[in-house]
Amino acid sequence: MGQVDFFYFFGSGYAYLSVLRIADLAAQEGATVNWRPFNVRPLMKENNVMLRDEAQKVRYLWRDIERRAAQHRLPFVKPPLWPTEPDLLASRVAMVAAEEGWVEPYTVESFRVWYLEGLPLGTEESLGTILPRVGQEVGRVLAKAAEPAASARLEAETEAARKLGAFGSPTFAVGEELFWGDDRLEEAVAWAAGRHPAQA
Amino acid sequence: MGQVDFFYFFGSGYAYLSVLRIADLAAQEGATVNWRPFNVRPLMKENNVMLRDEAQKVRYLWRDIERRAAQHRLPFVKPPLWPTEPDLLASRVAMVAAEEGWVEPYTVESFRVWYLEGLPLGTEESLGTILPRVGQEVGRVLAKAAEPAASARLEAETEAARKLGAFGSPTFAVGEELFWGDDRLEEAVAWAAGRHPAQA
Repeated sequence: MGQVDFFYFFGSGYAYLSVLRIADLAAQEGATVNWRPFNVRPLMKENNVMLRDEAQKVRYLWRDIERRAAQHRLPFVKPPLWPTEPDLLASRVAMVAAEEGWVEPYTVESFRVWYLEGLPLGTEESLGTILPRVGQEVGRVLAKAAEPAASARLEAETEAARKLGAFGSPTFAVGEELFWGDDRLEEAVAWAAGRHPAQA
Repeated sequence: MGQVDFFYFFGSGYAYLSVLRIADLAAQEGATVNWRPFNVRPLMKENNVMLRDEAQKVRYLWRDIERRAAQHRLPFVKPPLWPTEPDLLASRVAMVAAEEGWVEPYTVESFRVWYLEGLPLGTEESLGTILPRVGQEVGRVLAKAAEPAASARLEAETEAARKLGAFGSPTFAVGEELFWGDDRLEEAVAWAAGRHPAQA
């Protein structure tokens, strides 16, 4: 059975679409998903693809995400806070979640809370909302997320994404074959299932 | 009948896919295409989306274009020359072509010659190959492309793209609704035909 490595960043607008879509798509194709949150910021910087708040591109991106959400019949409310200026706490909590096996529900709930309830990611307020909903005790998780192991894992995952050649979020990898962007989710899942474009 | 304004740059890798696809897609939807070559470079610079040759992103883009070409069953040979370092002569010739009504065949032939025959865009060698194939006399066209009117038209088209909010190539506009990238070609054409995502 094919596997998709799903690299995404807490704070990535397009990742919202993939976070809400990937489980169903993978199930339809019989592929498994390896949820791998990472820190996209250094990789964007290395590839000169940092977004400027005021750029026309940023205005376009939100409109595009809105249209794509409509196309996929996903709820969309433009998050009031972007960049979320994450302190990476959302990602360090994700490392704890990955280690303990609840990274998928934590991720889905985080993106829903960010987009649809307007809470910034990585704050104690939003984590205090998200963690109980996925059955986790806030104090215990935050304590563990503050340990060096969480930061080390985040760095290692980011390095793994860098080695694969990733430069943005979301990125899907099937072995060493990379797919960038929610646009490529269907293609990545099909690839994992053994269907390549030329054979489609 | 809906219309798509098709903004593209001579030297844009992804534009190749759209150049070869848009006529058939538009015909299927009953939409018309307004072929509008422009100079994307200043807009990319303004939006901080210049590509670096050595970046992982660039390696990814060529692989992605290769996969997309296979998916659409289009011929693909990675152009040996990129960036083509166009002196913008290819674009100025396109302004003559647009004025005289042969911009579509000139564009299609140019991208085929660049991709599939490996000739850089905007050189006298490639223009000497392309122009006769589209029924044009090389000396006459090059003389007209050197006149100030050609440069002025290119600047005006680039300014029109800027005002719409474009920052990359290819860009499709349906009225003021923008679609960026070959990925969005189907969506843009459907929009021109009056089908919006939420109604799809």
